[in-house]
Amino acid sequence: MTNPFFKNHGPLKISKICEIINLNFDNKDTDQEIYDIKDLGNSENSDVTFFHSKKYKEIAAVTKASYCITTNSLKNELNSNCSPLIVDNVLIAVAKITNEFYPNAINDEFDSSVIHINKSKFKDKTKYGFNVLVGDNVTIGSNCSLGHNAIIEKNVSIGDNCSIGSNTIIRNSLLGNNVKVLDNCVIGKHGFGFFPDKNKNLRYPHIGIVIIEENCEIGCGSTIDRGSMSNTIIGKNTYLDNQIHIAHNVKIGENSIIAGQVGIAGSSIIGSNVRIGGQAGISGHIKIGNNVEIGGGSGVIKNIPDNTKVMGYPAKNIREFLRDNK
Amino acid sequence: MTNPFFKNHGPLKISKICEIINLNFDNKDTDQEIYDIKDLGNSENSDVTFFHSKKYKEIAAVTKASYCITTNSLKNELNSNCSPLIVDNVLIAVAKITNEFYPNAINDEFDSSVIHINKSKFKDKTKYGFNVLVGDNVTIGSNCSLGHNAIIEKNVSIGDNCSIGSNTIIRNSLLGNNVKVLDNCVIGKHGFGFFPDKNKNLRYPHIGIVIIEENCEIGCGSTIDRGSMSNTIIGKNTYLDNQIHIAHNVKIGENSIIAGQVGIAGSSIIGSNVRIGGQAGISGHIKIGNNVEIGGGSGVIKNIPDNTKVMGYPAKNIREFLRDNK
Amino acid sequence: MTNPFFKNHGPLKISKICEIINLNFDNKDTDQEIYDIKDLGNSENSDVTFFHSKKYKEIAAVTKASYCITTNSLKNELNSNCSPLIVDNVLIAVAKITNEFYPNAINDEFDSSVIHINKSKFKDKTKYGFNVLVGDNVTIGSNCSLGHNAIIEKNVSIGDNCSIGSNTIIRNSLLGNNVKVLDNCVIGKHGFGFFPDKNKNLRYPHIGIVIIEENCEIGCGSTIDRGSMSNTIIGKNTYLDNQIHIAHNVKIGENSIIAGQVGIAGSSIIGSNVRIGGQAGISGHIKIGNNVEIGGGSGVIKNIPDNTKVMGYPAKNIREFLRDNK
Repeated sequence: MTNPFFKNHGPLKISKICEIINLNFDNKDTDQEIYDIKDLGNSENSDVTFFHSKKYKEIAAVTKASYCITTNSLKNELNSNCSPLIVDNVLIAVAKITNEFYPNAINDEFDSSVIHINKSKFKDKTKYGFNVLVGDNVTIGSNCSLGHNAIIEKNVSIGDNCSIGSNTIIRNSLLGNNVKVLDNCVIGKHGFGFFPDKNKNLRYPHIGIVIIEENCEIGCGSTIDRGSMSNTIIGKNTYLDNQIHIAHNVKIGENSIIAGQVGIAGSSIIGSNVRIGGQAGISGHIKIGNNVEIGGGSGVIKNIPDNTKVMGYPAKNIREFLRDNK
Repeated sequence: MTNPFFKNHGPLKISKICEIINLNFDNKDTDQEIYDIKDLGNSENSDVTFFHSKKYKEIAAVTKASYCITTNSLKNELNSNCSPLIVDNVLIAVAKITNEFYPNAINDEFDSSVIHINKSKFKDKTKYGFNVLVGDNVTIGSNCSLGHNAIIEKNVSIGDNCSIGSNTIIRNSLLGNNVKVLDNCVIGKHGFGFFPDKNKNLRYPHIGIVIIEENCEIGCGSTIDRGSMSNTIIGKNTYLDNQIHIAHNVKIGENSIIAGQVGIAGSSIIGSNVRIGGQAGISGHIKIGNNVEIGGGSGVIKNIPDNTKVMGYPAKNIREFLRDNK
Repeated sequence: MTNPFFKNHGPLKISKICEIINLNFDNKDTDQEIYDIKDLGNSENSDVTFFHSKKYKEIAAVTKASYCITTNSLKNELNSNCSPLIVDNVLIAVAKITNEFYPNAINDEFDSSVIHINKSKFKDKTKYGFNVLVGDNVTIGSNCSLGHNAIIEKNVSIGDNCSIGSNTIIRNSLLGNNVKVLDNCVIGKHGFGFFPDKNKNLRYPHIGIVIIEENCEIGCGSTIDRGSMSNTIIGKNTYLDNQIHIAHNVKIGENSIIAGQVGIAGSSIIGSNVRIGGQAGISGHIKIGNNVEIGGGSGVIKNIPDNTKVMGYPAKNIREFLRDNK
């Protein structure tokens, strides 16, 4: 569950963490060492976490983290074993602390560690086209093919029997067995996450990765951004058509089918056996249940329960949609 | 009309075809040789065809095929000269038979037959950029240009005076004269067609091609998938803007104008002199007439007759749309 | 404000201009030399301009141009110091004249002037990946990086501390300092502008460029077309997410945030501090004020005043949208 790629520069003393975000810390007797920053659900006792929206209050009530960056108005929702660190802007504080743990997770310039695959250890075990590049810390399983001009940047693990299309760029990603990524995709770049500032927006780190489980297919021209504090996940045997955009931290279940030009905004969670029609859009931070069908062109702006068919903008029950539009 | 690229491994005896799809065949006296599998409209007496949706009952009534894969509930709509082959799932049966006729039409890995154009017969007759690749069975007319990193994979015929953009990938396609395909396009890959299966989806063959007729222009970042059982066709002098997605089997008429980010789902038929505004979406298996105007952002989910202006989601007559949204 | 890249082949006598568009010109005594063709707002006394839609009548009333191509029904809106040149189709006349001033602004074939960057003057001052190409008339500031397979075609100026992604193609563009263009983008190609014709559409020249001001970021797979008669401009510190399409002549203000898969049609003007949700579409030739928020999936088809929140298709006040869709 933890990120296998970005080097964690911790532990950091909690007194140091407070200093980074301009909080007083006077309890020197219990200056605990903090090993990582994680989201509410994944934190352990040795971690600091963060809590910035009421949407997450149920997880906040049971988090295992020792410390939590939050606001005055949310602090009472926290598990009583977790000490709040009260700030004005939770996300800016998280960005600063994350940057201390993972200083290399902001910059997404091209990977200068890559070499031509014919000079790499993959030369004889992988089928590849012209001008294929591979970076540091890459593993490739057996019986894979890499199309012309494919760029497998650093921190990528590819399973067996995978096929990567021409002109596709991948970094910070784990691909299971039998995954196909078609041409012209960009997988694993940082998401669209930053703090707006009138002079110069402040990017925050993206320490998550992209996980594409076994038997998936990703269509031409698609973009899948890696997560900021958690991972972006495509569940096994899920198929994506062309020109799809999956934003950071999105999780999609198994056996789902997503048609062309769909966009899923950040941190939304899509269930298994979900079918999404072409050009539909899913807002950020919402939850789509299992066995849901979303009609083409729909705009989904709230949670959808299991076993539901919806359509429209905003999306509603499909029977209601068809009745209203007779 | 037949596919010029995929090698047909037929003929197959009808007894063999029945065996592939687990049907009994006991009439050995008339074990006809079947030369191809085609859609209802294009089949000849020596072909097997398929009929899986009531939408096609008018064509089914006049098909020339000798045999037709269909269901018990549809068989009575068939031309009485055509013998039904009754199955539970028509499309899975079609996939199996197609795969027997055309075993090379499923796999869409990168084309390993390509060579650098400067080592090819096109070296002196074509203008080209850096790192251009051409595959087997490619023809290029006079006065063409191929941009940097363009990949003309196998089975492509390009007319005279064509211009292919940088980073564009083309396979299994026929381009007429004076066609421009701009940068970063993917033309001729298989469509988003498969049979969902909980363990591992089953892809079906795409034996159709992409035909782009003379004087067309295809904008940057567009994807045009080749057909499954018929061809994907862009009619002459039709212009597509950037980031458009045209799914498998779509046919677009002449002199049409399609603005940015439009998506057209599988098997829909668009007339001539049609104008489609930006980001509009067209559902699959529908028919848009001639001289139709579709407003930007519309979602078209049913047939549109000739000479109509529509807008909205679902798209309706534009006067009605404007009145409802005053 | 004038285009720095396309060579102006003027001046042209006004008699010559009339001849190009088949008008009589008999006042030989005052056969003025015309130095350029510009839009209404940017024209000087030595220029010819054009006026084809009532939308621009306020600017027409104060244009400084000596001559204006327009129609009989619009001519009375013109500044009385400006002589009308009456034609049936203003835009075709403009295309013909522009082509005379700027004969090289129609053709957008790949740039054959490019060389490998390691053979260029940028070899030692710029960080670059494999297979990077740079064309004529390119400048690159200090501390920039160019990703693998990036193509900087002719007529590009890149500021300091810029980062250009892999597989990205740029031409006819000015980038300020600290601009990031991520992977697989196409910046500066001609827009989707032509005169429909049943036999062969007629492209018109695009003499504008793309200007991306300092501190901007452009997401993966985006396309930004250069302007036809004016420039396409992205204001400073504006961030665009992945798969966005910005059409010709669009102007976006400062500090704006535009989420994934948004499309903005030609000639629209977007203010500063604007936020646009994912997949929203903006029609052409409209004006969005400052501090506007547009909900994801919206379709904006009319002007939006400052400080407004809108959502829906067609977009309306967000309170109204939420009330109507409870």
